[in-house]
Formats: sequence, structure tokens, C-alpha cells
Amino acid sequence: MSLYKGERLSINVFGESHGKAIGVVINGFPAGEVVNIDELQKFLARRAPGQSALSTARKEPDIPQFLSGIKDDIIGGTPICAVITNTDQRSRDYEAMRYTPRPGHADFGAFERFSGHADMRGGGHFSGRLTAPLCVAGGIAKQILARQNIEITARIKSIGGVVAQKPQCEPTPQMKERILEAKSQGDSVGGIVECEINGIKAGVGGLMFESLESKIAAMIFAIPAIKGIEFGNGFAAAALIGSENNDEFVFNKEIVSTKTNNHGGILGGLTTGMPIVFSVAVKPTPSIAKTQDTINLDTKQAVKLSIDGRHDPCIVPRILPCIESAAAIVALDTIDN
Amino acid sequence: MSLYKGERLSINVFGESHGKAIGVVINGFPAGEVVNIDELQKFLARRAPGQSALSTARKEPDIPQFLSGIKDDIIGGTPICAVITNTDQRSRDYEAMRYTPRPGHADFGAFERFSGHADMRGGGHFSGRLTAPLCVAGGIAKQILARQNIEITARIKSIGGVVAQKPQCEPTPQMKERILEAKSQGDSVGGIVECEINGIKAGVGGLMFESLESKIAAMIFAIPAIKGIEFGNGFAAAALIGSENNDEFVFNKEIVSTKTNNHGGILGGLTTGMPIVFSVAVKPTPSIAKTQDTINLDTKQAVKLSIDGRHDPCIVPRILPCIESAAAIVALDTIDN
Amino acid sequence: MSLYKGERLSINVFGESHGKAIGVVINGFPAGEVVNIDELQKFLARRAPGQSALSTARKEPDIPQFLSGIKDDIIGGTPICAVITNTDQRSRDYEAMRYTPRPGHADFGAFERFSGHADMRGGGHFSGRLTAPLCVAGGIAKQILARQNIEITARIKSIGGVVAQKPQCEPTPQMKERILEAKSQGDSVGGIVECEINGIKAGVGGLMFESLESKIAAMIFAIPAIKGIEFGNGFAAAALIGSENNDEFVFNKEIVSTKTNNHGGILGGLTTGMPIVFSVAVKPTPSIAKTQDTINLDTKQAVKLSIDGRHDPCIVPRILPCIESAAAIVALDTIDN
Amino acid sequence: MSLYKGERLSINVFGESHGKAIGVVINGFPAGEVVNIDELQKFLARRAPGQSALSTARKEPDIPQFLSGIKDDIIGGTPICAVITNTDQRSRDYEAMRYTPRPGHADFGAFERFSGHADMRGGGHFSGRLTAPLCVAGGIAKQILARQNIEITARIKSIGGVVAQKPQCEPTPQMKERILEAKSQGDSVGGIVECEINGIKAGVGGLMFESLESKIAAMIFAIPAIKGIEFGNGFAAAALIGSENNDEFVFNKEIVSTKTNNHGGILGGLTTGMPIVFSVAVKPTPSIAKTQDTINLDTKQAVKLSIDGRHDPCIVPRILPCIESAAAIVALDTIDN
Repeated sequence: MSLYKGERLSINVFGESHGKAIGVVINGFPAGEVVNIDELQKFLARRAPGQSALSTARKEPDIPQFLSGIKDDIIGGTPICAVITNTDQRSRDYEAMRYTPRPGHADFGAFERFSGHADMRGGGHFSGRLTAPLCVAGGIAKQILARQNIEITARIKSIGGVVAQKPQCEPTPQMKERILEAKSQGDSVGGIVECEINGIKAGVGGLMFESLESKIAAMIFAIPAIKGIEFGNGFAAAALIGSENNDEFVFNKEIVSTKTNNHGGILGGLTTGMPIVFSVAVKPTPSIAKTQDTINLDTKQAVKLSIDGRHDPCIVPRILPCIESAAAIVALDTIDN
Repeated sequence: MSLYKGERLSINVFGESHGKAIGVVINGFPAGEVVNIDELQKFLARRAPGQSALSTARKEPDIPQFLSGIKDDIIGGTPICAVITNTDQRSRDYEAMRYTPRPGHADFGAFERFSGHADMRGGGHFSGRLTAPLCVAGGIAKQILARQNIEITARIKSIGGVVAQKPQCEPTPQMKERILEAKSQGDSVGGIVECEINGIKAGVGGLMFESLESKIAAMIFAIPAIKGIEFGNGFAAAALIGSENNDEFVFNKEIVSTKTNNHGGILGGLTTGMPIVFSVAVKPTPSIAKTQDTINLDTKQAVKLSIDGRHDPCIVPRILPCIESAAAIVALDTIDN
Repeated sequence: MSLYKGERLSINVFGESHGKAIGVVINGFPAGEVVNIDELQKFLARRAPGQSALSTARKEPDIPQFLSGIKDDIIGGTPICAVITNTDQRSRDYEAMRYTPRPGHADFGAFERFSGHADMRGGGHFSGRLTAPLCVAGGIAKQILARQNIEITARIKSIGGVVAQKPQCEPTPQMKERILEAKSQGDSVGGIVECEINGIKAGVGGLMFESLESKIAAMIFAIPAIKGIEFGNGFAAAALIGSENNDEFVFNKEIVSTKTNNHGGILGGLTTGMPIVFSVAVKPTPSIAKTQDTINLDTKQAVKLSIDGRHDPCIVPRILPCIESAAAIVALDTIDN
Repeated sequence: MSLYKGERLSINVFGESHGKAIGVVINGFPAGEVVNIDELQKFLARRAPGQSALSTARKEPDIPQFLSGIKDDIIGGTPICAVITNTDQRSRDYEAMRYTPRPGHADFGAFERFSGHADMRGGGHFSGRLTAPLCVAGGIAKQILARQNIEITARIKSIGGVVAQKPQCEPTPQMKERILEAKSQGDSVGGIVECEINGIKAGVGGLMFESLESKIAAMIFAIPAIKGIEFGNGFAAAALIGSENNDEFVFNKEIVSTKTNNHGGILGGLTTGMPIVFSVAVKPTPSIAKTQDTINLDTKQAVKLSIDGRHDPCIVPRILPCIESAAAIVALDTIDN
């Protein structure tokens, strides 16, 4: 199931990359909240393809049509359905691949899981395109949270091994260069993204299996191409000693605070009131023009594969709003519990 | 809620570190499976405290009593309740700490969340002790999986910066030295653990929010002290190019396989049939003897804190069965879907 | 949330009676099953309005458009989204009623719940029209079940006090007369429907809160206008003695069976292999032309209300496929557990 | 699973009638609420067996021991585990019955479901005894609700065909006579119970599958022996006309109210602010001394069965606190949504 069933929200994403439409049904967004459609559209544009030489040539306006739950830009309280029509798919590019799973893609697992019945053209339901409806939900969640002074920002820490001095909202010139270099070689690069959530009070989250780290991690791994997540110091904490890694408590103008934020704002599954900070690893785009070895599941033969479709040499810049969306959905679902 | 609600399993852990008992209620374990109690006890002993100079002096036999669901060592199909009585707690050690949150612990968040009502002696429900009932569930799950030739092993990659040449089931002599050094300084160390799941066929897992990576990550973050998780190459993938990181498909004696396993056995949320491999970051034990700054939530004053209780200078060796348990529960819950 | 989250299925209905569209997202229908669109359309026609003098004059073709999850009439395994566009709404009929809750309708509760923000024209999300997407899911479920020799049939036991000698698939002439009589008086009638599920083996269902009776009852009460449900003898059992009401076990050609079926096929939440039989009470349509007292929530005044829209004098005949759909969804979700 | 997973509560009942203990784990009860243990014990005593000639001779003190989540009678916020030790079981009574399913019981379905592995002595997990832990949860929920002026009362409408003039908290003399008459014949009687929930404001509940009627019905059918439920007029509504059954809205001292309460306090799945009223059908106790026909699942032979254990000739009086508990759990789970 492509269903997030949270505390008070549910998000059900549907659609295939080359089907009629993709979309989302959202339950539980609070009645009376205004949806600023222009702002939402700008948010979605950050994720949309076809913006520059750095991303896929596929152009999709990605304008969601709201079929229910919102009237005169106000959330009514009943389920919201948003649909984005697919317009620029070229399935021809993929037809030959039905039985030739692409390295690094879900193709083979999906073939096994659904006995070959799923519509896998363009990656089908597993395509990064499915993050568009996620961003519809996340973009609205971000607007609602902003009214409660909760802000969520994802920034680039590195691309293809090029590390920014501090996390950036846009790729640096060296990063762009690295992306174009990979592109020119018919190859791709990945990167690391940091996300910060500010404005959530202490004591929010849950116990054990419902820890806030569990919820954020589960949502983040819904985004294709994510291969790791760490909170605060994360993996670096493993080489520190306790007295280095612990964050001492202090009063900051009567507000409980910690001197440092090595813990990334969450301890024992609950917020401490410090900014929530986590980083995620984005693998290099698996669709590459370079020839690769694969197999034909029908003929049982080894075959060569060169992926000619329109692909991003690096999805890191476009993934930022997806990370923010994932964080926003969890935050909105959790803040009042 | 400390409730895991999976596809066909649910696991509800209960108890406080210094309360009467801790335990677990398990729904959905298959009827007719035998529980090898000796083997379970050996598995639990790997997690139990008081085994060596490397761990806490608290000694708990950690023998689960099954109140329901198992008769003559056979699983009946109805809910299983296992209870472990607390015997060696010394709450005196903690009484003074009620209003002085320990750095690196859940104390402050829990105080805010439950308005100070939760029994937080010894860390209460947030104590690492609560992983004992998790291991009861996980140990049984491992036995059931082993009968289906699914094996799960967690190994130590590093402790306190000491990196093993290859992952080890026990700490190396240098690691032990590093732990004792930290202990002698009233400090603690963390480490990195790798876990491998072998024997799961291709196509297992779920879509988007129910991806297998989402499920494993959510379960892993239920274990206290975990601050990061990565699958396959994980964060290292972020610096590779696509042609390096992609795993090419080949036939291996008529079985679809990949030449390498950079993806860690999961693509698009579904298994590929390759071993599932993930690593987790364990932070240094936050309870240390060294004096730390904190606050008194009652008097609103800054105070000094030195934690005199019996604590592990390093929980990495004892966390291995917890990681295996988390993996086993998710695996058992997922393999038939 | 209008979300059914079952064992392996989820059903999320969305839409408002007078909005752009209504629809459903379905997760978990088995990959590879064929959807016979003609048969589905015939099934939906049984529920559709505007068929005869007995029902509302609103005419909606109710043709679902599948946006995802089905390709060439085959279920792929990813989420199915079906949309039915609203075409014949006349919101003018309802505009005046925004602050005047209709007796017997959800209007007042919804006003309180959503602070007046929900689009309640034509009953909004609470309209009986929302059973159309339920029937899309149920109609497909019925087709899948039929291939496993599981058949579900709902029949009319009574309408407006006119009791059939035995349950009927169509209203009897006396029932039709009773409906038209009520209609001519600007009034409405209800009835009782019996539903039978044949072909489910013994041992299916769940324990306590997940008993099969709990699941069927919960799903049935999702249908507007249902006010009661009973299994087997139901309320009549309350006046019997144990030896009358108990069903003795016998072998029927090596198959375990019961001599009678007073229990309605479910004991202790689990099937016995006998036909599952339950009856539901359908209240008289609350929308009537007769003048009624109500209030204006804005002016706080008492007002008179006569509902001029197009309404069914009796929804019992049209509710049959809805009951079958509810039963089919639960059956499909439960049979393999 | 014997798991109720609600909006903010979960209730997991465990145990078998003749096992070591029965109990419950509760998540989500609000921190800081006091549990009045004396009051809880009195509540449980209403359900406990062995009180009079009207009920089973099995005597169980049914004193819950709280293992976690409650300290000094205050709810802490972490999971509550309550255990009731089984003391007076006589499994000998049941040994012979392992392969001879008792008419009217879950025995056969459970045998099929769990391949004979479940501990079914005394009905096992399906025994009415398992309502004791339900009442622990419900009794506490009632106390919490009472502090918010929400009162829940179940009353007897009829027993064995003897109908009270108005619902009674205790059986009338005629009802007692009817019970003793059945008992003297080695037989049993059932009855009808009405439950009323007062004090819930308008707008509480949910949409479609999460309608308040769905939630109450699902919870009620978790109680063994319940065969029907109806809200307000229920089945009687089926014979009324709309203008009779509709409840007109009026202002009652500025509070919106309805002139009558035929709808039973819920419309479209949401409360109207009127008392919630529902009735349930309780079947005659299936365990009777009278000889009945059944089968031996092992030998495949027809056999005669006379149940010699200690059984209630009528469980209606003892089921009242169970009904109240079911209602209280749903109410507490729903009131703030």
C-alpha cells in the first residue's frame, strides 16, 4: 500500500509515471485552513522537471486539480483529492525494457511482486514522478505549519563529492559543474541533504516504535533514491565519547535549551525543543546513458542496456521540496499529540 | 504508543525500568510454531546486563514468563504475553534526578510530554532495559525465520572509532581496550553495527510509505541510542557516480542476482533477493560519571550532575541482539505479503 | 478520515455530492485479476439514481474513470484510483440550507465538526452519492470473490412495513405501492435488507476487536441510513433458550456443518463455514417534501423547512449493491488471514 | 489480533480462560488522571462470576495487578499493563471436549483457524472471561470520562422474552424467575441491553468507515454473545415513515437539540449532542447442560455432548459493565477528534 496512516493524517499517493494521472488523497488536514495556490505552485515548481540543463528534459506543468475537500481555497475537513494529469510521457522509450530490469531501479522487485502485471513504463508507481503528489500534500502542510511558526528547510550539503562549506539552498557553481561533467559522460551523481525543522516545542513525538525518529525515517524512505538518514551527529557520534556527544541543558531566557545540538532535536523519540536536524543520503540517479549489463527476464539471456530516456544527471536539487514535504507531513501529524 | 502495528504482527512493549515488570504482548505469530526456550534464553543472555566489566553492574536474569499464547512451548495463535519481573533496580540512585534531566536522555522530553507524571526512575519506559521484551519477540521471530532459512546477523563495524577490518560478532581486543579506557575516565563510547538478512526472496516489501526500508528504519529507531541508518552503500553512495553505484543484473544459476550489492538488497522499497544489508549508528551511552551541566526543572536553577548509577561504558555489544530482533520482526511481518 | 484500513486492503473514498468529482483509491487488490468493466457498470447501475419513479430524478451516469492501477482491464498491484465526475448537481436547491440543518441528516454534526467549512451542498461528503465509489471498490471485489466461488447477495426483507414472504432481489408490487404512497405524501419509507455470503471456509475472521462481526458491522455503518445490524437470529435470539438457538454440529458429506444456521455463519468472530447471514435496518430517507421544523444556526431562529430537491422516497432497492459492496470488501480483506 | 487500534488509544487483550493469567495493555490513556482503585474494583465486581445463583459457580476475585504505566494510582502516560491471575479454573471439565466443538461456541472456527494449536480449555481466548481485562480498560475510561461529565449506563430491556417496562440496572423479579427456570431445565436465556452515553458534544465521530456507529459497533461485537446492535429506533425505524422518524431541530436554551431522539444521538457518523442510545442483542449462553449433538473432529463420528462445567444460565446482568466498557473506550478515544 502507498498509504501513510498517521496519528491524524493519512496520505494515499496513486498513479503511474506513464498512466493517465498521478495524485493523492489526504485525510485529516484541519478544516478552515487556507491553501495559497500560488505559493503551492511555486513550491511544486522547485520539484518539477524540465527547468534547466541540470534536470530531465521531460516537462510537466504539474498543476494539481483539486477534486474534493477544498472549496474557494479553504480546507473543508473532508478528504482532499488532488490529481495531476500526465501529459508529456513517451512510453516508447521504455517499451523495450519490460523484461530488462534497469540496474538500480525497482523494476525487478516489482516484476516479482506483481507477477509482471504492474504498469512499469517510466518506472510506473516507483518513478520519482510520484513525489509530485507527495509535494502537493507537503506543500499544503508547510503552509499550515508556517502559520504556527514552524519552518522547514532542506539544504544541499554535498553533490557528487563536492561538499559545501555550509548547507546551501541551491547547488554551488562547483556542484553544477560536477553535475554537468557526469551528464557529459552519460553518468549521474548523488548527494547529501540536510533538513531542519524549527519551532516545534519539547515533548512531541512518541514512544519506541512511534518515536519521532521512526516516523521521520519511515516517511523519508518513501522517497525514491534515499539510502540513509541520520539525526544530529548521526554516524559521526559513533566515534565520539559521551561527554563530547551529550548536549548539556541550560536555561535560555527561561526556555530550556541545550548548549549544543548534537542530538538533532530528538531524544528518546521525543523533541527537546531544539531544532530537529537530520541528513539524508541521495544515491546517484540510476538511469544513465552508459551501457550496463542486465538480463532479459523472458528469454533468460544476458543483455546490454543503455537508457535513452530523458533523465536527471542529479536529482538532489529537485529532491529538496520532497524532503521538506516528508518532514512537513510528519510534523503536522505529530505536533498536537 | 509503544505499539508496532504491522501487516500481520503487532508488538506492544510495556514497563518501566524500575517498575514491577516489563513485558510484551505479541499478536500474529503463526500457530503451531515451536518456541525453543533454551535457545531464546541464550539469545536474551546476549543482551542481558552484568555479563562482564564492559557492561553495567545491574544484574537481571531477564527470564520471560509466558502468561498466554504459548502452551507446551507451542504457539497457539492467540496473543502472547511475556513478562520479565524487575528485581535488581536501585531507585535510590535516581531519586535526586527527578527534576534534573540527564544530558542525552529522554528525561526532559518525557517530562514535558507527560507533565511529569511518568515514572522515569532509571529512565522509565525509555530505558534500554525495554529492549529486553523487544528481544523476546525478536528471538522467537528469529527461530521461526530460521526454519524458513532466513538468517539475521548483526556485527560490530566499529567502537569508539576503532574500526574492525571486517564486521565482528564480538568486540576486538582493541575495541575492548577502547571501552575500558572510556570507562576509566567516567566516560562512554558508541559504535557502528552492520546487520545482514539472508534468505528473503525478491519482491518482498511495500510501496512508498510502506517500503521495506521505511519499515526497517522505523523499527530500528525504536531502539534507544540509534542515531542513523543506511542501506547498502548508504551515505557513501552520495559521492559515487551512477555507473559505480548501480548493481548490474546477472543470472546466477538461473537465479536473478546482482554482480555487486551496493543497494543493500532493497530497491524501490522491494527486495531484490540479494542479502539485505544495513548499518546503524549507536551513540555513546549518555549516562556517564563525568560531571555535566544541567538544570533543575523545579527550581529553574543550573545544577551539576554526576551519574553514579551502574551504567554501560558501551552498549554496542549488547545492542546486537536488539538490532537482530528489530530486523527479525520486520522480516517475519513482511515475507508473505 | 473516510479511510478503511483493513488487513491487506485500504479503501479511501473522497468527494462531495456537488463538488467536481467523487472517487476512491484502493490499495491491495491482487495483481493479475481482470476487471470486467461491463459487469461492473451493470453492478453500478443497480445503485445509480434516476432509474424509475421510485428514485430521485437526479441522473448521473456514474461511469468511473480509472486513473491508475488498472491497465488493459488488468489490476497491476499499485493503488487504483477511480473517479466519477459529478454532472447533474443543482446546488441552487441547497443554497438556502447552509445554516438550516435538515432533520435526519449529518448537516448539524458536520457544521459543528468542521466549523462550517465543509462543502455540504447536497449533503456534501455525507451524501448517499458517496456510496457510488464504494460500489466501484465493492463491485470489483465481488468479481474477484466470484472467481473463488464466493457469492454475495443482498435481498429485501421489508419496505415500509411490507414484509416479503421471503427476501427478494426486487421490491414486490406491494412494496412499490407503499413507496409511491409515501412519495405522493411528500414522505419516505425505509426497510430491512438481508445479506448472505456463501463460500467462505471455516476459521476466517479475527479475535475480539477484529472479529468478523466487528469488521462487517463497521463497514456496514459506513453506508448512510443504516441504523442496525444483526447476525443470524440477531435480536430474535434474545427471546430464545440456548437449546433452541444453538446450532448442533454434524458431518455433511465429510464437511463439518450445522443443522441450523441461527448463528449466521460466525461464532466467536470466526466463520463456521456456514453461510454468513446478516440483516440491516435502513431508515426512511430523511429528505422529505413535508414541512419540518428546524433552526437557523446563523440567526438562532426557528424556521420551517421543506426539501424541494430530487430525493428518493425509498433508498432500499438502491442500497442493495452498497450492502453487497461492503460485504465484499470485508470478505476479500479477510479470506486469506 | 485482539487489538483495538483507535485514534489515540490502543487496547490489547491477552490470555486464555484456563491459562496462567489474562490481562490487557493500554496505550494512550491521558497522563495525570487518577485511577480510583476501589471504584474500579466495584465496577469489576459487577462483571465477576460467582456472585449469585444466577451466574456460574466459578469464583475469580478478578483483582487486576498493574505492572506498568500507573504509579501511586496516577496514570503516567506510558503503556499500562494489568494482569489478572487465573485461580479457579478446572480444566478437567473441558479436557474431553478438545475435539468436540460445543454448539454455539467458537471452538470449531478456532480449531480450523489455528490448526488445533490454540489453548481452548474453557473456551480459551474466546471465553467470556476475557471481558474482565476489557472491563479494566473500560472501568478506567469511565472514571476519566466522568470527570468530563460524560456518563455511560447500560440497562436491561429484556431477559428471555421478559420485557421490562423501562430498562433496568438489575433484572426484575420476573426476569430472575425466568433465568432460574431455564437453569432448572439445564438451559439458558439471553436478552436485550440498552446503553446510553450522555454528555458528548455535537460533531464528534468520523466519516464513513470511521463513523461513530462503525466504531461503537465494532467494539461491541468484540464482546462474546452479542448478535446485534441498533442505534436509536434501529430496526423499528424500517417500518416508520420519514416524517415520523426524523428528529426536528430546536433550540433548547441556546443549545441545539432535537425534539425527539429517534436517531440515537448519531447522524452521518457524527454526534448531534443528543444522548447516544443503542441496544444490543445478547444470545442465550451457549454452554448448557442439556444433551446436544455434535461431532468428534478426530474420529469424524457424531457424538452426544452435555456440558457439565459451571456456566451462567444468563450472562445479561454480568454483560452490563462490558457494554459500558466498550462504549467508554470508544467515547474516550473519540471525544477530542
